[in-house]
Amino acid sequence: MSAIITLTSDFGGRDAFTASVKGVILKINPQTQIVDVSNEIAPQDIWEAAFTLKSAYNHFPKGSVHLAVVDPGVGSSRRPIIVVTESYYFVGPDNGLFSLIYQEAERIRVHHITASHYFLPNPGPTFHGRDIFAPVASWLAKGIPSGNFGEEITDYIKLNVPAAKTIANGIEGHVVHVDRFGNLITNIVYKNMQELLGEGADTASVTINVAGRDIKGLKKFYAEAAPGEPGAIINGNGTVEIFVFKQNARAVLSAKRGDSVRLTVSR
Amino acid sequence: MSAIITLTSDFGGRDAFTASVKGVILKINPQTQIVDVSNEIAPQDIWEAAFTLKSAYNHFPKGSVHLAVVDPGVGSSRRPIIVVTESYYFVGPDNGLFSLIYQEAERIRVHHITASHYFLPNPGPTFHGRDIFAPVASWLAKGIPSGNFGEEITDYIKLNVPAAKTIANGIEGHVVHVDRFGNLITNIVYKNMQELLGEGADTASVTINVAGRDIKGLKKFYAEAAPGEPGAIINGNGTVEIFVFKQNARAVLSAKRGDSVRLTVSR
Amino acid sequence: MSAIITLTSDFGGRDAFTASVKGVILKINPQTQIVDVSNEIAPQDIWEAAFTLKSAYNHFPKGSVHLAVVDPGVGSSRRPIIVVTESYYFVGPDNGLFSLIYQEAERIRVHHITASHYFLPNPGPTFHGRDIFAPVASWLAKGIPSGNFGEEITDYIKLNVPAAKTIANGIEGHVVHVDRFGNLITNIVYKNMQELLGEGADTASVTINVAGRDIKGLKKFYAEAAPGEPGAIINGNGTVEIFVFKQNARAVLSAKRGDSVRLTVSR
Repeated sequence: MSAIITLTSDFGGRDAFTASVKGVILKINPQTQIVDVSNEIAPQDIWEAAFTLKSAYNHFPKGSVHLAVVDPGVGSSRRPIIVVTESYYFVGPDNGLFSLIYQEAERIRVHHITASHYFLPNPGPTFHGRDIFAPVASWLAKGIPSGNFGEEITDYIKLNVPAAKTIANGIEGHVVHVDRFGNLITNIVYKNMQELLGEGADTASVTINVAGRDIKGLKKFYAEAAPGEPGAIINGNGTVEIFVFKQNARAVLSAKRGDSVRLTVSR
Repeated sequence: MSAIITLTSDFGGRDAFTASVKGVILKINPQTQIVDVSNEIAPQDIWEAAFTLKSAYNHFPKGSVHLAVVDPGVGSSRRPIIVVTESYYFVGPDNGLFSLIYQEAERIRVHHITASHYFLPNPGPTFHGRDIFAPVASWLAKGIPSGNFGEEITDYIKLNVPAAKTIANGIEGHVVHVDRFGNLITNIVYKNMQELLGEGADTASVTINVAGRDIKGLKKFYAEAAPGEPGAIINGNGTVEIFVFKQNARAVLSAKRGDSVRLTVSR
Repeated sequence: MSAIITLTSDFGGRDAFTASVKGVILKINPQTQIVDVSNEIAPQDIWEAAFTLKSAYNHFPKGSVHLAVVDPGVGSSRRPIIVVTESYYFVGPDNGLFSLIYQEAERIRVHHITASHYFLPNPGPTFHGRDIFAPVASWLAKGIPSGNFGEEITDYIKLNVPAAKTIANGIEGHVVHVDRFGNLITNIVYKNMQELLGEGADTASVTINVAGRDIKGLKKFYAEAAPGEPGAIINGNGTVEIFVFKQNARAVLSAKRGDSVRLTVSR
């Protein structure tokens, strides 16, 4: 069986953290295919890790193990957990990192990892990614049943994830992520916008207000926008995204994660 | 068969873009060996992607698939293509990204990708790297013949790539890339310099003018240069490179990509 | 046999250097599992490479080949070497990069690589990582005995690695690394601190002086420290580390690599 383990963390690529995790995985199963989702999550930014993992996880083969470690509470009483969904396994700290998985999965089961004989000997208080999560992920990917690692729990931690909400003639959401290109990713979902518009309606009747600017209509592709003018588009996650063609919307609009975004329809 | 797919893009390592592409590849063929050429190409910088891919591609095993996506025109009418050479396959947008491959290959064949049953269902307009190029690359690496993806075309796009040119007693070129160390990579080719010098000639008779400085002779290795003094050397691509030993030539010389470089021979 | 090769270098992820090395390895053995330890070592920083490799290497499976290239002397008379320990192979330049391996290994054997038929044809003077070290590492991982690459030598280069030293009622060391989070990693070893404290002693009696600040006692985990207050902890390498919970100790303390750190015990 070809084991696939993905890695999402704030370990960075410069220090030895990420490589140590990979070494531990390979020592248990040298056949593992390890894929970085991102190790460049901002230090301690649990939300960014949750969002990034959510954007990638379901593109991987069924049975993949998603190891995710952004873990400011490492060494404290926060629990290590395994999350089991219909198609995937997730291993990491119980600090809300898997909140968006809980929202999307049809069925989930969460185990508190307590079977310390799967850990590295004498785990320290600073690097559970290497000492606890990596070996558990590797044994799990190698076929050890999730139940062997500890009891099921139901009181696992969920981040308070604010959803976009309906307002008069529109939807109010916010910027949930700014990507490498400076595009502003919002939590306004395409499907909800379509319901609001109704059948056969034109997206030209939509106005999106963000960072003090009004953006009229939606573009079909990036290059359709005029140079320097902010545009809106439905992105690969099925949500509204604000961009400036070949430029950085974050910089052009002085926008940031958390900024309010209001979509309204003129009738 | 062990499939190898390399990846060149401006997707960065922080967001989920690169990982999503890899997940799609592995879902089709979990045995694929995926190698990053670079995902840190400057946003929308087609030339940098072309140059970087050209520097690496021919070191990979015959039959490797080189997936390259720097794609400002994504979602517009620009075509997705497969390029087939004697030894490799290339998959990406038809925007000039493969111009240096066209120059180097003895024979090439280019296919316009139209067989949408190989795509992810319902590809969106913003992320063809994931929705179109990744699955095509993976099926191609798995053995589907290139002709199955679409008709051959001959009007594919080539970047206008300015070559170095002969001048009186010399060669005039320019800086085509600045690397991580700040070294200035030029398009002045060693072989052409040797022809200019003639048999048995001494490289001490060469002067290289760049950023208002004259550099005399060529060094045999970096450490041969005096501290703080710019030197010239023939690099691993077989072209003239300007460096400052253990320092950053870009910073020391205030140079940049596109700067003119003049090599002259005193007789 | 599944060959594992790790890579530690200052090649960066943006240029084609790292990918070219990987291509050469895979051309010789497409089955190789290649793992980045770090390619983001600061340019020419041999110490950082030595420290980073040391932090990761022994987590990998026995028999792994650790390829490490930070090589300001490339092309000069500095020798290419293979280091053989009880459990691993190391390939790279003889410039001190493996000094911490020499310290830790029970037995070592060092070979001067001279068997040029294993190199790429016509290696240039600027990129031995690709032309010499990559093919040697790949043939070695494929099973060619280390002795086939060249004669054993005993005069290999060791960096002058200053150890922490005993002082009145304490230990004086220094900051040997600053990690991505801004944590200050010292060379004060837990085991030596415990010997100093004696049996049953309390770590509350320890004071650590760094960057003009006194830090009292050791924390059991990061989150135990008060917000904004520097804390000390025993990290995953078994050494004293200075941190500021959810902040950057380097920035908060204006500290840097090389800074003196004094641990004293009040009795």
